Amino acid sequence: SVFVRADFKDSLCPIYSAIEEADFLAIDGEFSGISDGPSVSALTNGMDTPGERYVKLRKHSMDFLLFQFGLCTFRYDQSQSKYLMKAFNFYIFPKPFSRNSPDIKFICQSSSIDFLASQGFDFNKVFRSGIPYLNQEEESQLREQYEERRSQVNGAGTPSYISPNSCKGPVNVPDEHKDFIGRVVEKVDALLNSSEKSKERFIQISKVDEEERRRMEQQKYEREQEEMNDAVGFSRVIHAVSKSGKLVVGHNMLLDVMHTIHQFYCSLPEELDDFKEVTMCVFPRLLDTKLMASTQPFKAMCVCVPLECSEGFQSYDTASERLHEAGYDAYITGLCFISMANYLGSFLTPPRSHISARSKLLEPFYNKLFLMRVIDIPYLNISGPDLQPKRDHVLYVTFPKEWKTSDLYQLFSAFGNIQVSWLDDTSAFVSLSQLEQVQIAVNTSQYAESYRIQTYAEYLQAKQKNTNINRKWAEDGWADASYKSAGMTSTCSRAHNRSLTGKRSLSPTQEDQNSDFTGIADSNWSNYSNPETKKIKRDGMVGGCAQTYADVLVSRTTDDWLRTLYVSASLSLSPHWSTQSLVKMYPQATQTGLFDVPQVW
Amino acid sequence: SVFVRADFKDSLCPIYSAIEEADFLAIDGEFSGISDGPSVSALTNGMDTPGERYVKLRKHSMDFLLFQFGLCTFRYDQSQSKYLMKAFNFYIFPKPFSRNSPDIKFICQSSSIDFLASQGFDFNKVFRSGIPYLNQEEESQLREQYEERRSQVNGAGTPSYISPNSCKGPVNVPDEHKDFIGRVVEKVDALLNSSEKSKERFIQISKVDEEERRRMEQQKYEREQEEMNDAVGFSRVIHAVSKSGKLVVGHNMLLDVMHTIHQFYCSLPEELDDFKEVTMCVFPRLLDTKLMASTQPFKAMCVCVPLECSEGFQSYDTASERLHEAGYDAYITGLCFISMANYLGSFLTPPRSHISARSKLLEPFYNKLFLMRVIDIPYLNISGPDLQPKRDHVLYVTFPKEWKTSDLYQLFSAFGNIQVSWLDDTSAFVSLSQLEQVQIAVNTSQYAESYRIQTYAEYLQAKQKNTNINRKWAEDGWADASYKSAGMTSTCSRAHNRSLTGKRSLSPTQEDQNSDFTGIADSNWSNYSNPETKKIKRDGMVGGCAQTYADVLVSRTTDDWLRTLYVSASLSLSPHWSTQSLVKMYPQATQTGLFDVPQVW
Repeated sequence: SVFVRADFKDSLCPIYSAIEEADFLAIDGEFSGISDGPSVSALTNGMDTPGERYVKLRKHSMDFLLFQFGLCTFRYDQSQSKYLMKAFNFYIFPKPFSRNSPDIKFICQSSSIDFLASQGFDFNKVFRSGIPYLNQEEESQLREQYEERRSQVNGAGTPSYISPNSCKGPVNVPDEHKDFIGRVVEKVDALLNSSEKSKERFIQISKVDEEERRRMEQQKYEREQEEMNDAVGFSRVIHAVSKSGKLVVGHNMLLDVMHTIHQFYCSLPEELDDFKEVTMCVFPRLLDTKLMASTQPFKAMCVCVPLECSEGFQSYDTASERLHEAGYDAYITGLCFISMANYLGSFLTPPRSHISARSKLLEPFYNKLFLMRVIDIPYLNISGPDLQPKRDHVLYVTFPKEWKTSDLYQLFSAFGNIQVSWLDDTSAFVSLSQLEQVQIAVNTSQYAESYRIQTYAEYLQAKQKNTNINRKWAEDGWADASYKSAGMTSTCSRAHNRSLTGKRSLSPTQEDQNSDFTGIADSNWSNYSNPETKKIKRDGMVGGCAQTYADVLVSRTTDDWLRTLYVSASLSLSPHWSTQSLVKMYPQATQTGLFDVPQVW
Repeated sequence: SVFVRADFKDSLCPIYSAIEEADFLAIDGEFSGISDGPSVSALTNGMDTPGERYVKLRKHSMDFLLFQFGLCTFRYDQSQSKYLMKAFNFYIFPKPFSRNSPDIKFICQSSSIDFLASQGFDFNKVFRSGIPYLNQEEESQLREQYEERRSQVNGAGTPSYISPNSCKGPVNVPDEHKDFIGRVVEKVDALLNSSEKSKERFIQISKVDEEERRRMEQQKYEREQEEMNDAVGFSRVIHAVSKSGKLVVGHNMLLDVMHTIHQFYCSLPEELDDFKEVTMCVFPRLLDTKLMASTQPFKAMCVCVPLECSEGFQSYDTASERLHEAGYDAYITGLCFISMANYLGSFLTPPRSHISARSKLLEPFYNKLFLMRVIDIPYLNISGPDLQPKRDHVLYVTFPKEWKTSDLYQLFSAFGNIQVSWLDDTSAFVSLSQLEQVQIAVNTSQYAESYRIQTYAEYLQAKQKNTNINRKWAEDGWADASYKSAGMTSTCSRAHNRSLTGKRSLSPTQEDQNSDFTGIADSNWSNYSNPETKKIKRDGMVGGCAQTYADVLVSRTTDDWLRTLYVSASLSLSPHWSTQSLVKMYPQATQTGLFDVPQVW
């Protein structure tokens, strides 16, 4: 179903019911652009820390508008052994509510707009009939305005004719108007004393008894409530998703989550830790299918197969809806999630063909959002501290601005494979494949004039000197009260009184012990999600993280990422293949990436 | 006619002809927004100098997109004694030409978008089918790219397989490929020595004789020229308008001119003087109907009359086209210009009913663009130095941020009428009505603790201390070579070799002497366009400049400004009314503004 302003209000009940019934929800957003920075490579460096990446995305992506939101609800029907799906497509536009409401400005990126246009995106639906919305602060302000006006009418507040900073008291009637005002007062007095019901002229004045007055006030109150709800608009859908506490699935969903919170809850906090806190309040359970698909055992099966898995699901109406319509993309994302979840069931003893969205098997994937193009950190951990890979094999190199990647390869030609991550025109990170070469490289550079080599540790030290604020996760994570900045906590509790300590139960690391998660125990990243206790050799991870340049920014402007989804979805066709048999069928799937991350932790 | 990408190329000839035949052109643009600044009052202060205003508009308005351009051509047919009109409506969008072309980002302002949506604006036509464009620099770069590629093919340039910064010479074939390459070379040699015409495999290799080779190269050249022309796109229309040198009429056209130059010629220069220079190159003859309509004798007749003056003109097809479509707005602007021009003819002895667009009567209005909401400077003079009103009666007042306008009125209550122009939360200009009160006000403030009063001269002095660059118009205006920054002049000459000295002939002040401009000799501003030589009492001007707040920013988002146009247009119904009779009919028209600018210069 497609929703615009006119039909939105009447459709809220079915939307609420769909969310209420669902086992899980899939979401997807379409934006007016991706990045307003000067160059992509400057914005997404392969050695970004999660905090750095968050700051960049917040700075360079939040001025775009999320103008189409796809929501797909999935309910498993036990009796039929199949999922029932409902897809919703919302066009969204910040139509100014009144003269005083904020006049939102947003950026459009012509490549993104052109891509959406080529997909038949209907911009008139957005700009002419988009559903409005308010964030929580705007909603509060509006409610206060209404409250204030009501209390004034009821005589409880300051009369509106008294400006707070001027002299108190009623307006002085200018001499030349006193006659006129006097005559009006006489007429009103006469009316109150007469038996006439009302007197119409330019102002209608009516006599009402107490009961009628209450009725009229009630009507007015209800009208105001409706106006207010109309203004809150699409945010009500997000509030319902949030309050449901259901699992929310997305594909490469970090930007979707950031935009959703930014537009419908609050301006994004400056720091990553605060963002995590807000995110856990709004979406207590997230799952990113891109992370799931890039992880063993799914990742080993990257072969393109057309999507044929709609059997058993209520199909999306492909006649009227389209690829890259947010609702359709959410639908595909949900399908892939189901396929991958069910595939996990095939590793159980005995194997299960259906895995519920609430299964402990899925918990390792909770609240971990795929991080694009970071070499050694596959995901952002929303519900706890992030991975902190040691970067002992990484060098920070500065050089003249004429240098190209080939110059760096030449410089390090004696050191075997290297991986270059550009920072700017005159600096880059260079990852060596062997740790023992790091000191050799640093030593040999001491007499160089045109370039300079430092260890990553030295780089960090110099950088931290330049940074005043250097907040770190406490050892015990969320329990530390210092993270609860007043504003965030209040946003959180206002949203739906979920206690902060309650979030601990969402962390997979604690419950892994009790899980029935046996078949894929060697699945790599679930074992190193807590960097402090488990430092084991990783394999296969690199390929999953080392995205190509094209994959990073273009993932929303090509069909590449959907192909990945198709693959995963196709697994449902033969849920009993073992990883071994798949590896035999597709030997190239185990090929390592061009550059291996050195096994130093 | 409405033009989008698909039908644009085929329609260029008729457009070029229409421009060539025309006596004058009217233009209008629709933008994705007006101002991205924090508040309107901060952006448009009533005491802005023309230079300050230009800098603000450049900073806060150029990131919006001009996405619809209206062009209306008017040709006077002597035999029929009427104008023939052709209206064109272009949808414009910076569709990326190729992978390497710039990915333009632009801002949308929701109030502007919402207003256009309410007028039925078709956003799909913009975003799906908008005509692309390049500015001059992008066009040059593209031409160079094509040239370089051609010269490489012809063996004149560097072979493409040699990277400029790597070691020179052909690529080294790796050992494992030498066999394969060797076999291919053998096959090509065999083909060249055989009688076969071509050999198809993955690469098609054909033998051609010299004549055929030339023919194919010519075809390729023509194809490239067409690709390039497609990329230059809508800019070609603006180039044609520019080259024609015809009078270009607009209503409140400063932003239209700025956006047009910014998108289709070059990024706007930082300083006003350079902007003037570029503008005179691109549009040698501009006329702003808003300035004309706010000037005596037109201004005295501000009465709302519906537009009924299409008789005698080819009518706009109102069935399919609409108000606030750029082409329609350009049409109305042109109509009003004709009406006002003809009205001027009624003052001649003997009166003339038709005044040509080339009449000397119009020269005083040339190249003077209406300045919104500047109290004492009615226009920006594109072809010469700006008016420099003395501001001896203006005070610069600083005060606590709690102060409101009423506090300022109270503070100056002893001084009669004042006019307040807010600068920011804690400062404002206050114009006194009597010059002799200035020193009294400054003196009495010396013991005040909460506020501070300085003269305008003192304010300027303090400000100029903070400004490093303080370029000023030389006494002899355009003749000073120091204004011709290399970049601008080259842009100019590249556009259409018009000599800078030639511009002097466009200045009205020089030719006023010879003009048949007698009937409205007391029209005020034409007499003080050269501030150095004529300092006379002004009257009636203030009302024309003291726009209301609403008029400033909302002029594009309400129908207000069109009402002004209607008025002027309606004059054509009775072109022989004298100013006197109109004043009798509408006495309120001569009422002075709420605040008179003191008569001190």
